[in-house]
Amino acid sequence: MFKILRVNMTDLSVKAEDVPEEYQGLGGRGLTSAIVAKEVEPTCSPIGTNNKLIFAPGLLGGTNCANSGRISVGAKSPLTGGIKEANSGGQAGQYLAKLGISAIVVEGMAQDDMLHKLFVSKEKCELLPADELKGMGNYATVERLKDEYGLDVAFVSIGQAGEWKMGAATVAFTDKELRPTRHAGRGGLGAVMGSKGLKAIIIDPSEGEAAPLVDREAFKEAAKRFAKALQEHPVTSEGLTTYGTAVLINVINEAGALPTRNFSNGRFEGADKVGGETLNKITAERKGDPSHGCMTGCIIRCSGTFLDSKGNHVSKWPEYETIWAWGPNCEIDDLEAIARIDRACDDIGVDTIETGAAVAVAMEGGVKEFGDAAGAEELIAEIGEGTPLGRILGSGAGVTGKTFGVRRVPVVKNQALPAYDPRAVKGVGVTYATSPMGGDHTAGYAVATNIMKIGGDVHPLRTESQAKLSKDLQVTTAVIDTAGLCLFVAFPMLDIPDAFTAMVDMLNAKYGLSMTGDDIGALGQKVLEMETDFNRRAGFGRADDRLPEFFRTEKLPPHNVVFDVPDDHLDSVLKFD
Amino acid sequence: MFKILRVNMTDLSVKAEDVPEEYQGLGGRGLTSAIVAKEVEPTCSPIGTNNKLIFAPGLLGGTNCANSGRISVGAKSPLTGGIKEANSGGQAGQYLAKLGISAIVVEGMAQDDMLHKLFVSKEKCELLPADELKGMGNYATVERLKDEYGLDVAFVSIGQAGEWKMGAATVAFTDKELRPTRHAGRGGLGAVMGSKGLKAIIIDPSEGEAAPLVDREAFKEAAKRFAKALQEHPVTSEGLTTYGTAVLINVINEAGALPTRNFSNGRFEGADKVGGETLNKITAERKGDPSHGCMTGCIIRCSGTFLDSKGNHVSKWPEYETIWAWGPNCEIDDLEAIARIDRACDDIGVDTIETGAAVAVAMEGGVKEFGDAAGAEELIAEIGEGTPLGRILGSGAGVTGKTFGVRRVPVVKNQALPAYDPRAVKGVGVTYATSPMGGDHTAGYAVATNIMKIGGDVHPLRTESQAKLSKDLQVTTAVIDTAGLCLFVAFPMLDIPDAFTAMVDMLNAKYGLSMTGDDIGALGQKVLEMETDFNRRAGFGRADDRLPEFFRTEKLPPHNVVFDVPDDHLDSVLKFD
Repeated sequence: MFKILRVNMTDLSVKAEDVPEEYQGLGGRGLTSAIVAKEVEPTCSPIGTNNKLIFAPGLLGGTNCANSGRISVGAKSPLTGGIKEANSGGQAGQYLAKLGISAIVVEGMAQDDMLHKLFVSKEKCELLPADELKGMGNYATVERLKDEYGLDVAFVSIGQAGEWKMGAATVAFTDKELRPTRHAGRGGLGAVMGSKGLKAIIIDPSEGEAAPLVDREAFKEAAKRFAKALQEHPVTSEGLTTYGTAVLINVINEAGALPTRNFSNGRFEGADKVGGETLNKITAERKGDPSHGCMTGCIIRCSGTFLDSKGNHVSKWPEYETIWAWGPNCEIDDLEAIARIDRACDDIGVDTIETGAAVAVAMEGGVKEFGDAAGAEELIAEIGEGTPLGRILGSGAGVTGKTFGVRRVPVVKNQALPAYDPRAVKGVGVTYATSPMGGDHTAGYAVATNIMKIGGDVHPLRTESQAKLSKDLQVTTAVIDTAGLCLFVAFPMLDIPDAFTAMVDMLNAKYGLSMTGDDIGALGQKVLEMETDFNRRAGFGRADDRLPEFFRTEKLPPHNVVFDVPDDHLDSVLKFD
Repeated sequence: MFKILRVNMTDLSVKAEDVPEEYQGLGGRGLTSAIVAKEVEPTCSPIGTNNKLIFAPGLLGGTNCANSGRISVGAKSPLTGGIKEANSGGQAGQYLAKLGISAIVVEGMAQDDMLHKLFVSKEKCELLPADELKGMGNYATVERLKDEYGLDVAFVSIGQAGEWKMGAATVAFTDKELRPTRHAGRGGLGAVMGSKGLKAIIIDPSEGEAAPLVDREAFKEAAKRFAKALQEHPVTSEGLTTYGTAVLINVINEAGALPTRNFSNGRFEGADKVGGETLNKITAERKGDPSHGCMTGCIIRCSGTFLDSKGNHVSKWPEYETIWAWGPNCEIDDLEAIARIDRACDDIGVDTIETGAAVAVAMEGGVKEFGDAAGAEELIAEIGEGTPLGRILGSGAGVTGKTFGVRRVPVVKNQALPAYDPRAVKGVGVTYATSPMGGDHTAGYAVATNIMKIGGDVHPLRTESQAKLSKDLQVTTAVIDTAGLCLFVAFPMLDIPDAFTAMVDMLNAKYGLSMTGDDIGALGQKVLEMETDFNRRAGFGRADDRLPEFFRTEKLPPHNVVFDVPDDHLDSVLKFD
């Protein structure tokens, strides 16, 4: 029987309860958002006792469906002030599902400055003092926990940034090698964890079992079809597998949409030096692993290991958005420095997108020169030290812009826009503007259809059809995030109809349901409606669904385009009849 | 004939135009808000080329009506993101009115980092380079301008904070002694001026004339009645005149509503040491001036000069809210230090309320100890130096709270709440929550009726009638701000019916109108409606009209009360039928 674990940081109690009826049929983002929408007062302080931090594996978690091990983290966001879900790879999702835990809901707030850790196993769930971990980065935290709990567990933790309640603070999840390289990165969820005094979670999956399946045979058959689609589609079987997400650097640069020098150009001269092809090449030279899954059950394997020139491990392969944020966006073309920064971000526990964007804004404010890789490494060190400058940058691009009086601040709902300039990929611009999550590419990845021509072809520079494209993608993404699937399954789903059908069939087979494709669409829509309603109650108005002014007034080279999707198109996106 | 001066910082042109019909009948806040509401795109960057900065004397400016020389400054606020009007004493208001200038509208943005100054006289209005003033505080700026323009002018300027576009940056106005002690303090309007590259305005009133009066005799008679009311009411003829606004320290402390230690207590042990009685006493001992008007035509004279123990001029008398912000709110009871900080704030050009509130939040975040006066002086110095820590504090309490992960952050619409705890003076709490200006006591000063029993008696701790009280005061205040009157005329107006009638009579006599009291109410309502509509278009929702959570959940000693005015009361305040 699936349970919700209620962890009360005020009285340090841990209680399991049956999943209430209203939350049944939900998992992942659907469940975290439902709990936030129902149980969290929208005007509460995001770092106060009345916010709740929720961890939930997806509906397909705990099965052998390919790429189904994502874990969603939800809360009211300290960064945006709205609802937030961020999901991550690593082992935690599968382990929780196998322990029969639908969600961990962390409530209340430690009554003193003491830190605690949560131990979760089949036998026992308890909060334990963890002051010995105070001030530690994620790497040191995990090393310490490994000594205590061994290697057959998964760790969830926050670094210094989470303890300091920074707006860019992440929640870290260990990968298969027990490195804290996987993060629920966006929206400052690590600050919520820190505010509650929860430093780490240890998940011991022993005695856990594969999730029960109502129709085992049907599930097996559908899972096979689903995996086949992933293995057939060129993006999930070749592009991502060989070059990682950084395969996009040259693609997006070619499209004139790679935000360079704090969103003032769409092309970066040094793109090739930091692209996926280079990443693959130097990894091969250094005998690193160029094709690695971030979680058990992944068949895309877009990650890799980044070794330095002496063959020592530096980090996992930095993601495309990480390379962009600290690379082109800061006019830095030094991949070695970017990999070191990636590790530092993972260690301190800050979102690479938000902090890279903040550093570019600070560079525009005169704090460092654009292109100064050593300067960027100094800045990430300042974040880790918690100096005033580090605190500014760790609070994100919005606060950095205010602090240094910078006008070109690329945020929506105070969350930094990622690695696709919305003027040159207008579909994703619509997603940035309208997603209840704030500036976020994953919420409706229109780059696929605008640039990669996956799921059709909507010209990236025209305004027509972008709202419809973003809307459809946002609905589908809400479902994928609810199922606990890696977002990259969307690529085959958009091109191979049976991939979508196979997902529906798996859900039906697991839960003994008979949902249609329309029911699935309604589920995605329901999730988005809960989220937008929360944001409305938190004070968001229509004008919060807009891009910053400079995207509408400053032309982006090389196409010399502005973002000109009309406001009424934007307002149509999350309206459902 | 009255003119609007259009100052274009992009092409450096200055043009006079007739007042368009839609702006006729408006002055002061009514005019600045009308221009912002009509001409500024609500989602524009407040520090970008499309914001406008407007200076406007009130409808009674340029006359010999007592206390009618206030000047309003308006723009989209860099601090709140909403519409903003802040008004100031000093000589500029009367001078502009006497030059026949209804408003100066500063538009565009300098195309480089050059600074300019605007010279305004009957003969000529022009923009001149002012790079020689770069990086100077207001005191040094004014000294330099005095050398060039002499003593028979008024200066308007920004300090370093304005140049750096800080959220707490003010616009400074010189007083009768040509000291930059009068500020349009709230909402970061100095940052708007700085963003446009306008360092100073020099207003030469020579050849200016008293404002024309349609019915001179009727005006004279009404002005006399108005002055009589001011001279009769004990607050405007005794309390403020003798002890300055700091007369309130002991009054509000006694009421248990003096926010202490970052809004965690309503009583401050050291209150008497920093109160108006002490201020008066040491000023007398040091042969300072204890009763001084901040502008010609003032008969209340609530200001004074603060001398140090050797008799050297330090600052004007720090206002009640200044003393509170850096005193009780930081648990500092050192009046000498507070006076030095007051001068430093005037010099750097930062709002004493916003920065004092920010420092208290920083103290809660562990940056300094509460009660550390020397530490507070170090912090104001950091603001003036523009260090990262100084930039944080100069960006206001909201940014400071985010940066240091502090939960108790007393802001509404990101503007710091002033010196009256809303839990113990619930009427002003309603004003804080609902005013389109953000947390602001002057927008509807319910303290008068809650605590001083002026204009009736509404119990400060009860929830009933507070919404109605705040609404009526907000409407009246919008009129007073539109007329260019000092807000303190509200005290006699609330108690002596003829004071209000005299104001209406003066407006009618000056403009040849026949407005009734109801018409005046409609005018105030119209101003508020323009403002709230702008904010709605800028993205504000209902939940933005709420106090921070901790006021609703943490009990304030000594009365142990929370802010419990129901949301529907708050939502009723700015709804007009």
